[in-house]
Parts: sequence; structure tokens; C-alpha cells
Amino acid sequence: MRIGAIEAGGTKFICGIGNEEGEIQERVSFPTEHPEQTLSQVILYFRGRQADAIGIGSFGPIDVDVSSPRYGCITTTPKPGWAGFDFLGTMKRAFDVPFGWDTDVNAAAYGEAMWGAAKNLQSCVYFTIGTGIGTGVYVEGKRVHGLVHSEGGHILTRRHPEDDFQGCCIYHGDCLEGMAAGPAIEQRWGTKGSELPADHPAWAIEAFYIGQAVASTILLMSPEKVILGGGVMHQEQLFPLIHREVQRNLNGYVQHEAILSEIEQYIVAPGLGDNAGLCGALALGVDALKQRKG
Amino acid sequence: MRIGAIEAGGTKFICGIGNEEGEIQERVSFPTEHPEQTLSQVILYFRGRQADAIGIGSFGPIDVDVSSPRYGCITTTPKPGWAGFDFLGTMKRAFDVPFGWDTDVNAAAYGEAMWGAAKNLQSCVYFTIGTGIGTGVYVEGKRVHGLVHSEGGHILTRRHPEDDFQGCCIYHGDCLEGMAAGPAIEQRWGTKGSELPADHPAWAIEAFYIGQAVASTILLMSPEKVILGGGVMHQEQLFPLIHREVQRNLNGYVQHEAILSEIEQYIVAPGLGDNAGLCGALALGVDALKQRKG
Ligand SMILES: Nc1ncnc2c1ncn2[C@@H]1O[C@H](COP(=O)(O)OP(=O)(O)O)[C@@H](O)[C@H]1O
Ligand SMILES: Nc1ncnc2c1ncn2[C@@H]1O[C@H](COP(=O)(O)OP(=O)(O)O)[C@@H](O)[C@H]1O
Ligand SMILES: [Zn+2]
Ligand SMILES: [Zn+2]
Repeated sequence: MRIGAIEAGGTKFICGIGNEEGEIQERVSFPTEHPEQTLSQVILYFRGRQADAIGIGSFGPIDVDVSSPRYGCITTTPKPGWAGFDFLGTMKRAFDVPFGWDTDVNAAAYGEAMWGAAKNLQSCVYFTIGTGIGTGVYVEGKRVHGLVHSEGGHILTRRHPEDDFQGCCIYHGDCLEGMAAGPAIEQRWGTKGSELPADHPAWAIEAFYIGQAVASTILLMSPEKVILGGGVMHQEQLFPLIHREVQRNLNGYVQHEAILSEIEQYIVAPGLGDNAGLCGALALGVDALKQRKG
Repeated sequence: MRIGAIEAGGTKFICGIGNEEGEIQERVSFPTEHPEQTLSQVILYFRGRQADAIGIGSFGPIDVDVSSPRYGCITTTPKPGWAGFDFLGTMKRAFDVPFGWDTDVNAAAYGEAMWGAAKNLQSCVYFTIGTGIGTGVYVEGKRVHGLVHSEGGHILTRRHPEDDFQGCCIYHGDCLEGMAAGPAIEQRWGTKGSELPADHPAWAIEAFYIGQAVASTILLMSPEKVILGGGVMHQEQLFPLIHREVQRNLNGYVQHEAILSEIEQYIVAPGLGDNAGLCGALALGVDALKQRKG
């Protein structure tokens, strides 16, 4: 079987072909432009590649409610041209194959549950900490939608006592994303995160915010694995800092070895590395094909 | 069919008999004492009542992991005698019927999803705000367990600017439960919540904390309904205050009518009233019987 996969990010699109084992056989990437241009490139890529199904993990917010007339559309993004764009419909008009459709972060969580750090588990939460902060939720063996879909990047956290950065979320100012996504780091310190040394005080503050969000996630949803991906998490020194912050916040309340003594294996980087999103889209495609087959 | 139901609370136990339509036909209640005494009363109640299955919604933390050797036990409660007590095992030795087993709050969420405010929905989150704060989670048509189970009462919230109460959670001080459960209200104001007038400033502060927790829940899990029960929520004036706090926290970010314009129908009291917990236990019993039958 040849399964198509699209990781549709706000910055760049990645398209690829893979198989049911989660192996990516080929891939291309191009910057995200206006939807017409971008989708033309996507369609061109898949033309002639004979995919039996295609999975799409998309930036959002998107409509994932199958009973909604806007199912498959991007909803309210500030990205020019994309708000209201019928992404899935455009693809379906071009290719008569089964399609999978979910958020980029739900896809990443699903990819990790199929083939990555949460393999053989029934639940995981995936945080991507990059230009924004997004959350993907996989629970009791299912990707979670509900009213809309998870948007955990915008929860409110307590302020670090030494941090006077005002926050940069256009909706909430100092929500998690406003305090801890890549642009917040850059604005707080006047330097891109990638250029700050590993022992810079930025990372303790960063871990303080992420640690709170992860602790709240554990308390509310009790996932079997927490996966932290995205550009900012390339700073590997963040992991032990976050482990300590989560333990400090929970303070022994959740009596489970995964938190008390094995937290290094509980809050982890994506097992699929930077392929989590594309593999997740692939998993959506595999699913779509299975469902079509009955 | 005669289905037994046990709502096992830390303060009192309620036992009853009902049917598959969620109707409770009879019930009794007694204070929670040492486990041996309490379970004797439970067993005495069900003896001769010919239940075809029994559902238990229990205070906790409890072990709900079917693969664990301690499945069916209460785990780490400070309640004398109950830590480690094999609740489910004791019941199984007394009655050879199928048993359902979950937390009291997951049971309440499930009861609401079967027969109450979340009927016909695939997800809801139930908060009980009483002596403690507990959360029950039902997502994609399933009760959520995961690593342990939801314990959302202990998430950290921001402090209300006019509140200098230190908080009374023995684990976290000023976590949600430490700031907003019944005992916190009583300690902050020197008067039981039930005796404070409806226009007392206590309620704006209470709504401030609950509103934050509900907003975080919406952002992380996107439930189709949020249900607020427990003794403190008998203060009905809290609902409109909480609606406004949630809208203020989300600030238009979650673009859905349920939040923007129909929040009175989205964040609601239990449809089953104070029967949510017992009906939920009944639903667990109904489930257990169905599963036994295949
Ligand atoms: N090695 C790094 N260290 C710290 N921050 C980084 C690093 N790499 C990328 N970032 C930040 O992460 C953000 C980009 O995140 P990324 O996950 O790569 O893409 P996107 O979120 O746009 O899909 C930028 O704000 C960038 O400054
Ligand atoms: N009408 C009321 N108004 C405010 N607080 C109340 C009210 N009724 C009960 N409470 C508070 O709720 C707590 C008891 O919660 P409840 O849900 O009845 O039981 P429990 O949590 O022990 O199962 C107590 O702290 C009590 O002060
Ligand atoms: Zn925000
Ligand atoms: Zn606490």
C-alpha cells in the first residue's frame, strides 16, 4: 500500500508517501503561501504518485466535526487567505481516495501512539512548542475532538517570580503560548532561543511554564505518556528542568512510579523525532484506508 | 433487570437498586466509617436484594487499571483504614455478579452522559466542588483512566488579586481545591459557605477560581459539556459568575457558539441533580452486565 501524508504547518508544508508500518519512503517540503498556490503544489506532488489514501494533519483551528457543513475547513486563522478555506474538500475534488483529517498536533500524538514514544499505550498528550504552542490528545485509544479540539497552548499559568515579560499572545497576553512559545523567548531576551546558551536563565523560566502546563495536563487527563516536541524542545537541557518542575508542582500527590521515579521515561521527546507530524498524517491515511475497506 | 449501585463517598455511602433506564427504585445512605463496618452494611443491604450486577463509584484515589494486582483497591487516602483496602475484591467475595468499578466522579460524568445533562453527547467533564474538588472525564464515548485517573482538583490557578487566603490543600496549599473547595471557603471567611449570602464577595472569588479551571479544561480537552456539581454548587448564583469568568479567560479564542453565545447550556448543573453519582454507579452496573453477556 502507498499512503500519502501531509503535515500542513503554518510555516511549511511537508508531503510524503509511506506505508502501513509507519515508514516514510519519500518526502518534500515547501513554504506555506496562499491556499491556492500551496494546494496546487500539494496536488502536483500527489499526482502520479498513486496514493491509496491520504492523511492530513493540519494547522488550525480546523473543523473536525464530521456532522458540520464546514468539516474539513480551516476556521479562524489570521493567516491570509486560509480562514474558511476548504482544505479537505479541495483535496477530495482532486483525488478520489479515502482521506484522514485532523489537527497537526492530534496527528503527531497519534503517530507517536502508533509508532513512537507512546507505542502500545492507550493515551498520550503531545505538546508542540514552536512558533505557537499546540496540544494533541489521544485518550482511551482515540484521538480527542469534542466541542472543537484541544488548544492547550492557551491555558493560563502562574507567572515566574523573576519574569516581568508581559506576554505576547494576541488573545490572552500572558497565557502559556504568550509566555513560552519561541516568539515569547525571543521577545523576552532580545535573542532567538536557538542562540541562547544551554545554561542561560531563560531555560529555567521556560521549564517553569511548561512544567505547570504538563502538571495540569497530568491532573486533568492522566495520560500514559507526555511528549514534548517542536523547535524550542530542541533545547534538550529543558527536559530535566521540566521533570523537576512537574514533580515540584504535583508534590507527591499522584502516586505513580511513572511520576515519582521514572519521569525521564514519562515526559519525553517524540520517539519519531521531527517526523512525528508526518508519520501522524500517515497514520491518519492508514486509518482512512482501513475504514473504507470496512 | 435489577442493578445495584454504590456511591461510595468519603463522608457517606449511598446504596441503591435501579434499572437500565437509569431509574433508582430504592436507596439508603449511611456515614462512611472504617471499611469493615461500612462494607458490612453495604453487603447487608444487597443481601436478599437479588442484584444482577453492581456498579461502584468510589472516592479515591483508587486503582482502575485492570492489569494491576491492586485493581479495585483504594490507594493512598488519608481516611483511616481505607488506604490499600480491597473494596472491589471484598464485594466480589460476597456476591457472584458482574461488577462495574470507577471513581465517584467518573461515575457521575458517566451517569450524566447516559441520562443527564450530557445525554447523547460523546464527551463531558464533571467537576464536583464539595469537601474536595474532583473531576470525572468522559471523552469520545469512554470514561478516561490513563496512568491513574483524573484529579483535576489539584491544578494550580492564578490567585485572585483581592484574595490573601493561603490555601488549605495539604499537598499544594493554594491549588484549586486548596482555594475553592468548601473548607477553603469556610476558612477564608470564617463561616460555612452555606451561610454566606448570595451577594457576598466570596462568590466572585469562588467563580474566579472555578472559571480558570473550567477554561483550562475546555482548552485542553474540549468537552461537549461541562457539569458542575457538589455541595458548593448549590449556590446557584455561581453559574452566571462562572460563565462570565470562562468567557473572560478564553477571550474569544475558542470560536464556538456553545461558548460565545450559549454558555448557559454549556456549563451546567447536573441534569440528574444530587443523583448523578448514584445513577453513574448504576450505569457502571448496567455496563458490567452487558459486558458479561458479551
Ligand atoms: N534549537 C532551538 N532552540 C530554541 N528555540 C528554537 C530552536 N529551533 C527553533 N526554535 C524556535 O521555535 C520556533 C519554531 O518552531 P518549529 O516547531 O520549528 O516550527 P513551527 O512551530 O513554526 O511549526 C521559533 O520561534 C524558533 O525560534
Ligand atoms: N448550600 C451550600 N452552599 C455552599 N457550600 C455548601 C453548601 N452545601 C454544602 N456546602 C459545602 O460543600 C461541602 C460538602 O460537599 P458535598 O458535595 O455535599 O459532600 P462531599 O464533598 O463530602 O461528598 C462542605 O464543605 C460544605 O460546607
Ligand atoms: Zn493565548
Ligand atoms: Zn492540591
